[in-house]
Amino acid sequence: MDLQKESLLLHEKFKGKLSVDVKMPLNSMKDLSLAYSPGVAEPCRHIHDKPEKVYDYTIKGNLIAVVSDGTSVLGLGDIGPEASMPVMEGKAALFKAFAGIDAVPICLGTKDPDEIIKTVKLLQPSFGGINLEDIAAPNCFYIEERLKQEMNIPVFHDDQHGTAIVTAAGLINALKLVNKKIAEIKVVINGAGAAGIAIIKLLINMGVKDVIMCDTKGAIYEGRQERMNPIKESVAKITNKAKHQGLLEDIIAGADVFIGVSSAGALTKEMVQTMNRDSIIFAMANPVPEIMPEDAKEAGAKIIGTGRSDLPNQVNNVLALPGIFRGALDVRATDINDEMKMAAVDAIAGLIDCSELSPEYVIPGPLDSRVVPAVRDAVVKAAQETGVARKEILKSTLVNQS
Amino acid sequence: MDLQKESLLLHEKFKGKLSVDVKMPLNSMKDLSLAYSPGVAEPCRHIHDKPEKVYDYTIKGNLIAVVSDGTSVLGLGDIGPEASMPVMEGKAALFKAFAGIDAVPICLGTKDPDEIIKTVKLLQPSFGGINLEDIAAPNCFYIEERLKQEMNIPVFHDDQHGTAIVTAAGLINALKLVNKKIAEIKVVINGAGAAGIAIIKLLINMGVKDVIMCDTKGAIYEGRQERMNPIKESVAKITNKAKHQGLLEDIIAGADVFIGVSSAGALTKEMVQTMNRDSIIFAMANPVPEIMPEDAKEAGAKIIGTGRSDLPNQVNNVLALPGIFRGALDVRATDINDEMKMAAVDAIAGLIDCSELSPEYVIPGPLDSRVVPAVRDAVVKAAQETGVARKEILKSTLVNQS
Repeated sequence: MDLQKESLLLHEKFKGKLSVDVKMPLNSMKDLSLAYSPGVAEPCRHIHDKPEKVYDYTIKGNLIAVVSDGTSVLGLGDIGPEASMPVMEGKAALFKAFAGIDAVPICLGTKDPDEIIKTVKLLQPSFGGINLEDIAAPNCFYIEERLKQEMNIPVFHDDQHGTAIVTAAGLINALKLVNKKIAEIKVVINGAGAAGIAIIKLLINMGVKDVIMCDTKGAIYEGRQERMNPIKESVAKITNKAKHQGLLEDIIAGADVFIGVSSAGALTKEMVQTMNRDSIIFAMANPVPEIMPEDAKEAGAKIIGTGRSDLPNQVNNVLALPGIFRGALDVRATDINDEMKMAAVDAIAGLIDCSELSPEYVIPGPLDSRVVPAVRDAVVKAAQETGVARKEILKSTLVNQS
Repeated sequence: MDLQKESLLLHEKFKGKLSVDVKMPLNSMKDLSLAYSPGVAEPCRHIHDKPEKVYDYTIKGNLIAVVSDGTSVLGLGDIGPEASMPVMEGKAALFKAFAGIDAVPICLGTKDPDEIIKTVKLLQPSFGGINLEDIAAPNCFYIEERLKQEMNIPVFHDDQHGTAIVTAAGLINALKLVNKKIAEIKVVINGAGAAGIAIIKLLINMGVKDVIMCDTKGAIYEGRQERMNPIKESVAKITNKAKHQGLLEDIIAGADVFIGVSSAGALTKEMVQTMNRDSIIFAMANPVPEIMPEDAKEAGAKIIGTGRSDLPNQVNNVLALPGIFRGALDVRATDINDEMKMAAVDAIAGLIDCSELSPEYVIPGPLDSRVVPAVRDAVVKAAQETGVARKEILKSTLVNQS
């Protein structure tokens, strides 16, 4: 049986992937009177007196809403909120399986960004964090930015930052292998969607100087007239200082790194041949990458990552997301800031020792059990150092105490 | 240790009462590829083609949102959404423990009824039903009415209908014991909140002709000027046709039934003495009833129910709510209509055989395991007969096939 058919039958058999269960005893009248009326009045009173206590007496501190409007789901596009439910339920399941986080799918019946913002803000009393998922660009940028400003719980758009963090971790390790410095490389990013923009910002934060983003019309540069929008304008301001123009096939010449968040086949062997020596390629279009690893290798690439689990160096958001929220929740963070994201990048990259690094192993596998605790600890430390933690966690309890 | 202290410690130990768990295997890369990408694309596609399939492939069909704004929580009043979390989490836990329903607390950061309506409507893609809880009158009426009209999943305000249904069931059995006909009794309801209004409407549907509602200013009648509002105006139109005026102590004279949804001590022994012979009293103020059963008995009352678990005839919403939603979800009902509510009343009342009835036993106990299946089956039948069921359930599978 093929995977799709098997998945369908499995979903039908279980009727979804999640279950809400009771963790406090509820078998006798005594239990009922403790968990519910009249005993429950006591935690209510304490929270009313001191709102922060909601973290002590309820699920809030461990509860994430996985929020989507269904406008950019997997490779399927704008399929609507109902049809996005299996993905959001799946993401919620990953939160639990990987990091012990309770998460529920909240698929909203609107595409209006202001309605989405208003709704998510009103959910704040019940949730410890908001994971935005599969919301199309450019709305996703506006929604995340507003929510980060206006909520006091962490908000994180996985499609942007999850992909960016794992890609950046892979890039750090790949550069070690080819012995190039981050400030000296030329990076070309193909695809101006949510992930591409987030990768640009993260790489610039990490010290990349020479980076150009391409879309289907070619290089984005300041002053370009065709197919621009406010997000691309902002990209143009911080990239491609020489204002190079041209299609990907022109721009890729001499690049050290290609990062694809675009579509199958966007990168040809001919293009790879024009890249600098020891080129690094992250071809993350799903399910078929911009170039297959064997073709890229033949054309001279040194290190290749994709989004696929059946190929080496899988860029899988599951490496970042569960550990980041685990850390953020554990310190009751008010935000997931750039420092916490960078800490996650370094934690993921740092799991592979220099002696273990190879062109087929620059990113840990998604089932590597060291990933979540390492990311969590790094995020906890960064949150505490940057003042967004509302609860202190002792350094001595962290795995990595350096 | 007292109950309040014990409850607080228990809540702190467990950090709330719920846990979101994974019910599909998620241990290997193969599992991941089935539950998540790329396999998950297949149920997404099927739901996109046929939205009703969301009930087959996701948790939606078994998922309830327990929605509150925290304005009327237990006896605590307007304590806000965060402080209402322990109650909503508790209600969600009851849904699971009693009826296998997955439920999550959604406590909203607004008291604006239109904002609440808009938000709940946008949650529709993820949820199979909405249980409104602890929202103060009169907003609760407006919110429920609008949501029932504008959503295609069942919406139920527990504080109104849960209490009304269980009270009505107890009344049916009590009337059998004292051998009075529902069309001939005089009923006085004290308290013009959500529960009181819902009880009035249900009793009139059941055939009660003579009913008067009192608030702190006394009998409500058409033309009263003092302390009226649109809801009380509508009550005045359908009750107290003789336009009796006066305080509870005047109005109660000659009544067969007193129903209290007001406050401790509102009914005195002197008042009970003026009631008709074989009087029936449901004194449901929490935690201290309008009159204690021993006092009511001394004053001549025949049958007494309260809201307390340590006294006979407990009017506990848990008798109605889980079974009603179990039935509504099982047939994918678009509504919980009056016929379904009446079916629940009859099912609860019918569990006690005439030979078992006694003044101390007119309502089944909250842990009676027959209640949920009986209510569920009755609600399923009523939903099917009134055309609000989207999925057929064969009569032969019901416990009570008559």
